[in-house]
Amino acid sequence: MIYGFTGKILYVDLTAGRLHTETIDETAYRLYPGGRALAAYLLLKHMPAGVDPLGPDNVLILANGLLTGAPFSTATRFTAAARSPLTGAYGESEAGGFWGPELKMAGWEAIVVTGQAATPVYLSIQDDRAELRDARHLWGREPEEAQAIIRDELGDKLTRILQIGLGGENLVRFAALTNELRHFNGRTGMGAVMGSKRLKAVAVRGSNRYLGIARDPQSIADLGKRLAKRVKQHPQSWDLQDKGTPGLTAGLNTAGILPTRNFHTGEFEGVDNLRWEAYEQEILTARRSCYACAVRCKREVTVNDRYQVSSEYGGPEYEAVAGFGSNCMVDDLQAVAKANELCNRYTLDAISTSSAIAFAMECFEHELIGPDETGGLELRFGNAEAMVRCVEMIARREHIGNLLAEGTRRAAEVIGDDAPYFAMQIKGQELPMHDPRGKVGLGLGYAVSETGADHLTAFHDPMVANPESLSFKGAIPLGVREALPPRDLSRKKVELYALLENWSSMERAVGLCYFGPTPRSFIAVDEVVDAVRAATGWDVTVEELLRIGERATNLARIFNVREGLSRADDTLPQRLFEPLESGALAGVAYPKDDFARALTELYEVKGWDPQTTMPTREKLAALGIEWAADLAG
Amino acid sequence: MIYGFTGKILYVDLTAGRLHTETIDETAYRLYPGGRALAAYLLLKHMPAGVDPLGPDNVLILANGLLTGAPFSTATRFTAAARSPLTGAYGESEAGGFWGPELKMAGWEAIVVTGQAATPVYLSIQDDRAELRDARHLWGREPEEAQAIIRDELGDKLTRILQIGLGGENLVRFAALTNELRHFNGRTGMGAVMGSKRLKAVAVRGSNRYLGIARDPQSIADLGKRLAKRVKQHPQSWDLQDKGTPGLTAGLNTAGILPTRNFHTGEFEGVDNLRWEAYEQEILTARRSCYACAVRCKREVTVNDRYQVSSEYGGPEYEAVAGFGSNCMVDDLQAVAKANELCNRYTLDAISTSSAIAFAMECFEHELIGPDETGGLELRFGNAEAMVRCVEMIARREHIGNLLAEGTRRAAEVIGDDAPYFAMQIKGQELPMHDPRGKVGLGLGYAVSETGADHLTAFHDPMVANPESLSFKGAIPLGVREALPPRDLSRKKVELYALLENWSSMERAVGLCYFGPTPRSFIAVDEVVDAVRAATGWDVTVEELLRIGERATNLARIFNVREGLSRADDTLPQRLFEPLESGALAGVAYPKDDFARALTELYEVKGWDPQTTMPTREKLAALGIEWAADLAG
Repeated sequence: MIYGFTGKILYVDLTAGRLHTETIDETAYRLYPGGRALAAYLLLKHMPAGVDPLGPDNVLILANGLLTGAPFSTATRFTAAARSPLTGAYGESEAGGFWGPELKMAGWEAIVVTGQAATPVYLSIQDDRAELRDARHLWGREPEEAQAIIRDELGDKLTRILQIGLGGENLVRFAALTNELRHFNGRTGMGAVMGSKRLKAVAVRGSNRYLGIARDPQSIADLGKRLAKRVKQHPQSWDLQDKGTPGLTAGLNTAGILPTRNFHTGEFEGVDNLRWEAYEQEILTARRSCYACAVRCKREVTVNDRYQVSSEYGGPEYEAVAGFGSNCMVDDLQAVAKANELCNRYTLDAISTSSAIAFAMECFEHELIGPDETGGLELRFGNAEAMVRCVEMIARREHIGNLLAEGTRRAAEVIGDDAPYFAMQIKGQELPMHDPRGKVGLGLGYAVSETGADHLTAFHDPMVANPESLSFKGAIPLGVREALPPRDLSRKKVELYALLENWSSMERAVGLCYFGPTPRSFIAVDEVVDAVRAATGWDVTVEELLRIGERATNLARIFNVREGLSRADDTLPQRLFEPLESGALAGVAYPKDDFARALTELYEVKGWDPQTTMPTREKLAALGIEWAADLAG
Repeated sequence: MIYGFTGKILYVDLTAGRLHTETIDETAYRLYPGGRALAAYLLLKHMPAGVDPLGPDNVLILANGLLTGAPFSTATRFTAAARSPLTGAYGESEAGGFWGPELKMAGWEAIVVTGQAATPVYLSIQDDRAELRDARHLWGREPEEAQAIIRDELGDKLTRILQIGLGGENLVRFAALTNELRHFNGRTGMGAVMGSKRLKAVAVRGSNRYLGIARDPQSIADLGKRLAKRVKQHPQSWDLQDKGTPGLTAGLNTAGILPTRNFHTGEFEGVDNLRWEAYEQEILTARRSCYACAVRCKREVTVNDRYQVSSEYGGPEYEAVAGFGSNCMVDDLQAVAKANELCNRYTLDAISTSSAIAFAMECFEHELIGPDETGGLELRFGNAEAMVRCVEMIARREHIGNLLAEGTRRAAEVIGDDAPYFAMQIKGQELPMHDPRGKVGLGLGYAVSETGADHLTAFHDPMVANPESLSFKGAIPLGVREALPPRDLSRKKVELYALLENWSSMERAVGLCYFGPTPRSFIAVDEVVDAVRAATGWDVTVEELLRIGERATNLARIFNVREGLSRADDTLPQRLFEPLESGALAGVAYPKDDFARALTELYEVKGWDPQTTMPTREKLAALGIEWAADLAG
């Protein structure tokens, strides 16, 4: 058989300092074709329940998607997964950039990291050869510096480097991984897991080309050309190319769902200083891209003014603009850029970091914490300088930063009183900067996501609200039939959510970016199908792709059930059930009764027990994963 | 994880003379847990379409079942599988005895044999160690002698030996494998495949005990005790212990379905000389058993009279008694025993051999062949001496034997004229000794079986005809609801067939004998479930077990579709649509119109295309084997 994958998985036992290779069979790989699917499978296979997320028994998976490295737009993503130190649940986060494609070109589908090194090490991979190297001299160094030293040691300037900075070394529970300094596995604290293992970096260089392993390289190459042309003709992707995600800020403010003042409201009076036009004028210095991607949505910023912001660490995405901007009531874009740059420099997740700071600001204003805890900072909404300083404190675990580094949920429990009510988190993970009160389907996704609040699980309701829109039309081949308003939470919306969740999950398995396929962007359903066919020679259908996504989600869910999570953990923070205080949706709350009903319906649609949320045997059988039934019982 | 299997598969490349080991992952093994399931999976994985069944590209699989070697009754079976040289379709045959359990105790799930040795070799396995050894001095030797030499060479009298005799060496297309001289993988010509590869034998010695690898050894041991006690209390299994399968002869004659004169009729006037009482008095010398089995259904016979029959090669089963007896119109039990002994000595399948001879007799009587072809033999119905001589001629490929050795279908095509009408075969494989005109569900099984006519695919209709019978009651936990008469071919019978085919297929995957589980015998449904649970720790259900069986059948079916087979190959020989000439069912034919309808219904129930018989994508998805859809388009 000829196929688009090697099946090779590198096992790294850090305790013993030993490496070995195993291969996954093609028929198994077809069930778990990379990314989050392969990661969830390997986690369940290699890790028992109840391990300490920051102990040697946690298992860190780095898994490429089936299509990662294919030379067409958005096929760049790889997954980092482990038991999350932030949530105690299934942890997973994708990143684009260049590292995943490079790993694919070195011939590896995934890396499974177990154990804990006695002293810091890094892993070096050059095609078939892999070795652990001493990293004691790299520990404590910033990513830019560490990257230069590693490239120098390996004598190879083109080595791609995935690594952790100070946040990961200091076990900040929402620490990220970075590759090429600008691309991040941000969520669920995978950087802390890597830090706990004393693994500073994974340097990779591969000499194969993806087209060399694809079954039908010509079709892949043709798709690449077709998609590159289409970007500018497609309004959503052209917007992404032009503005990147920071283009969203002003529109969400107008719609009344720009999270502001720790989700008190959805409209920020200082938004003009944060909108794209300001970004472009004040801080933008370049547009950048991931491997082979024509969308080029990444921004690079430079500031030499009130703050010094290095261009080496990219630029703030929308999430950081809203998180450090409106949600902390800061209208100074330079401060936002600096806070974001520090997150990237220290490998902290910008969403969790900014949200933790907004939480701390609210606690400060309610005098649940004071200058004694903040090292004298007046950590109030709108205090840009205090905010920037607080990022530093989290990374270094100074003062209140040491508590916030444990994540908002834990910090709130320690602070007590009203603090848990101020903590905008689900399953321990801080909310992204999209207010579910205006997008109720997204709220369902926040609640059920196995990783805690996640804005990438399915869709944002406006995408499927207009039957004439490109995104709605693009979703029709998936079985989407009826356009539904953003605040509709009927059974139909629930079914739509379940369908598109499977699609989105599949994307994260095969290695496509959220900004690639329809309904979010410009790659048509049949093009995704064709790409998988061309890569592998497998005669896949849309239904099989959806089932791949569903299978991955069911494995992640079982991971959580095994760790003791249940329906009670699939919820929304109380504040969302209260009305927005101002803006276009002033007075609008998330419908609490509808939420409970929709959740029950969603479990029913998914084939899960309505209380334990355990998938039924019938569902697992239908997904070909009956083995997983035994893991949580 | 702890489980009842090692996952180790030994790969033997005879062309290169190289061995290597691979392991199958537990989650994959749960989909294909041994026996025919694992064999079909490995065949599809390692073999392209269209290989010469007797060339180096055929792949011979020897696969243990999940439970093979478990110390309880009937858990003894292993599968031999390859592309069949007799049918050109999926080839598979199970055997009990001692070899499979020994292979399990040596720590292997399966052996995959590829290529072709330049000169004869045998494979020796002692626990982890495996090697190929010269067998040039063994080629041409009878199994008894070869077995003694190999044991002597290895210095181990307890080595269990699977081997071929002259029939396999001479590539008789229905040659069998034998282990311990008395146990046979009889059907579909696996002996010819082994002969074509110049692999004389596989000698195995293992030192592990099954209980050592089972998850819950106490439950397995308890089941063994419980079943051993139950045999004598259970009428069917007690009958098997007392008489073995030769106990069936007289009853089938009374029922009018004892194949007689090449299926012209179902009643044989000389049956008194063949019935159990005659067998017991005239030839029986011992009752024997397979590994750890309390049923002890194997007979041993000795004759020193008109024929010399060695006790070393076991004794005739019912199939041989009817095949060489009534179907050749021979009422001399000694001749029947001798013909059977020669089959065993030369490793020929007794069903195909006797059927080929009955076919040749009919051709002779119609003067389609004559003494020129038979070497002067008067090969007429009832000529016992000629029949015995003809077995020898087939093994040695002398005269007409050389043509019959190609199988009845090919021989008939060469002889021409009415000969194809006399050939009682389906897909090229000769019919077993059960007449579908009296058991119409069995006829459905003959027709659809992927291996050609096979009496072990599901059930014999009388078993599920009486709602008060033990067999019917035993089948209720499988979902059997309504008793149906033997000649009922309603939609309900079709559904019953499909259900019990999955159950039977599962038995052949996990290594249980047809005479073990209900509805055929004494092991209850929940005991099978419990045994698999105790062996593995998997929390399996009846539904999962049924799906295992269904999955294996779907893989075998896809193998056939890939080789160009379709609905036209799922048929019955014309003679069965004509009335029985005498006996209790005189005038009764197989209902032709009902058959066509029932076949269409069966495909519908199975989820297969009604013309190509290809499983639908939905069916493959429901079985977790979407990968298999690509193999046959």
